Amino acid sequence: MTRPSEEGLIARYFAPLAAPGALGLADDAACFAPKPGHDLVVTVDAVVAGVHFLPDDPPESVAHKALGVNLSDLAAKGAEPSGFLLTLALPDDWSEVWLAGFATGLAAAAAESRCGLLGGDTVRAAGPLSLSVTAIGQVPPGRMVRRTTAGLGDRICVSGTVGDAVLGLTLLTGSPGWHAALSGEARAHCIDRYRRPQARLALASALLAHASAAMDISDGLVGDLTKMMRVSGLGAVVDLQAVPFSEAAQTAMAAEPGLRDRLVTGGDDYEILACLPQSRLDAFLAEAGRSGVPVAVIGEVVAAEGVVFRDGSVPHTFASGSFSHF
Amino acid sequence: MTRPSEEGLIARYFAPLAAPGALGLADDAACFAPKPGHDLVVTVDAVVAGVHFLPDDPPESVAHKALGVNLSDLAAKGAEPSGFLLTLALPDDWSEVWLAGFATGLAAAAAESRCGLLGGDTVRAAGPLSLSVTAIGQVPPGRMVRRTTAGLGDRICVSGTVGDAVLGLTLLTGSPGWHAALSGEARAHCIDRYRRPQARLALASALLAHASAAMDISDGLVGDLTKMMRVSGLGAVVDLQAVPFSEAAQTAMAAEPGLRDRLVTGGDDYEILACLPQSRLDAFLAEAGRSGVPVAVIGEVVAAEGVVFRDGSVPHTFASGSFSHF
Repeated sequence: MTRPSEEGLIARYFAPLAAPGALGLADDAACFAPKPGHDLVVTVDAVVAGVHFLPDDPPESVAHKALGVNLSDLAAKGAEPSGFLLTLALPDDWSEVWLAGFATGLAAAAAESRCGLLGGDTVRAAGPLSLSVTAIGQVPPGRMVRRTTAGLGDRICVSGTVGDAVLGLTLLTGSPGWHAALSGEARAHCIDRYRRPQARLALASALLAHASAAMDISDGLVGDLTKMMRVSGLGAVVDLQAVPFSEAAQTAMAAEPGLRDRLVTGGDDYEILACLPQSRLDAFLAEAGRSGVPVAVIGEVVAAEGVVFRDGSVPHTFASGSFSHF
Repeated sequence: MTRPSEEGLIARYFAPLAAPGALGLADDAACFAPKPGHDLVVTVDAVVAGVHFLPDDPPESVAHKALGVNLSDLAAKGAEPSGFLLTLALPDDWSEVWLAGFATGLAAAAAESRCGLLGGDTVRAAGPLSLSVTAIGQVPPGRMVRRTTAGLGDRICVSGTVGDAVLGLTLLTGSPGWHAALSGEARAHCIDRYRRPQARLALASALLAHASAAMDISDGLVGDLTKMMRVSGLGAVVDLQAVPFSEAAQTAMAAEPGLRDRLVTGGDDYEILACLPQSRLDAFLAEAGRSGVPVAVIGEVVAAEGVVFRDGSVPHTFASGSFSHF
């Protein structure tokens, strides 16, 4: 099969996705005008086959994940997306069919989040497929929601549900005992949560208005909350009974009660973990409700070192604290 | 040997390089305030071991190249650097010694160009070492120098000297016949040009003030000029006798006269190719002179398709037009 040149690839698959400032990707750089007086919020995250996604994941979902994990960072910072840049390192056996599917998925993910492609680079690398995305967003001046600024007495909130992605990954890579307990729909839900994280961009303005600190959960609720408290110089108490789980996760836990620890320590949730001063909690929950993103209060920031997890009134410890993609 | 965690790597090697807005790299994203009313110029380019640099190149020079090739794009667009983000995909056999050298080189390259680290991601990928850099710069509103806007009758200029990098690569990978003709110093010069491209940031303000179009030369003078004319819908006439070569390159060509074709078609120059309206040429050359960057006039934009190369008055054709890293 004849493969197109890099210029041909760009023209065929990526130029249609170009943001207005990207000049059709025909220049060396993109140019865009930030909102007057706004701060830029920039982040970069890479995903690698066999580490962050499975080598046989559909190309559409790989695109969705590469962009989604970065938009999730913007959402946690209260930022509105402006655009993104993509580096695609293709393995020796790349095919144009794969690339066409990838471009379709990327176009859909970019359109959903109103975040256009500002530039990119395509290189050959004799190794696993890897993708690096730089996402750029904007916030009013001085208002980026930080990770390091949790306040004593803050309520700790988490969006959506926790642990579905690790269930999805487990389903894709083995035959867990709880497999039979889940309906086909429930299994599909978990797999979709693993493959296609949905950045909680709808929550950004509520975070911006009310949160004292926030981050997205990529390495598991337990590990990421522990990190956030450490960099804030505080501790936390969390009630595991308040952690929100999907119906699928509840069914799996009913079949295998020990599973909960994996759900709260596993990676790839891409939900938002936020700290809210008590005085802002009600307003935040109301605004989150209007945005359509469910939010649960799971604990409180305290003057201590580390995070104490309780199961109702019983202290709970984890054998393994945090997932790491590195 | 115990290897540090990703958090440990960031704290030890990359946090010292953090730009003010990068919040010590302890957050999910960096935040910075663009100059009021300025446009953002963004670009991304990756470099891969065995493709863009040699696997045994010193780690300091790998850092220099990864940043330099991106700053070169900013320079060509007339932009002043604001900061950069880095994705580092480490192969299985990475060592902390390598990483320490890399961080040292990156710190030096970032300091030279006053371009701070805004964020990054470190991933493991079982393949060659690869690095993706997103560079962010700023220009006054609407003023980014484009690639696509060459004007009929413009003079075509090139900065510095052409072809040294391809000589350096040839020296590093073989024993060319002209090897003995070069002094040790001349060989070192060529190798350094290959390994550590110097972005022509000093030329950015002169380009901004006077150029109708510009790009940096990464895939060879012949191929890149041909691309620039094609996207501008024009042609060009270039006199090869006007192309600037270093003393080292002149010595090599004296030993092997056929070499000139490779010098003007080889990659990795990272010089600036610019089009200047005749009315702006003198002012541009004067300002370039004050910036300390040599600039040569090599040809003219004409109403035609393609680029005609002449050797004095004799038309010249190339067997192979353009180098491609892809």
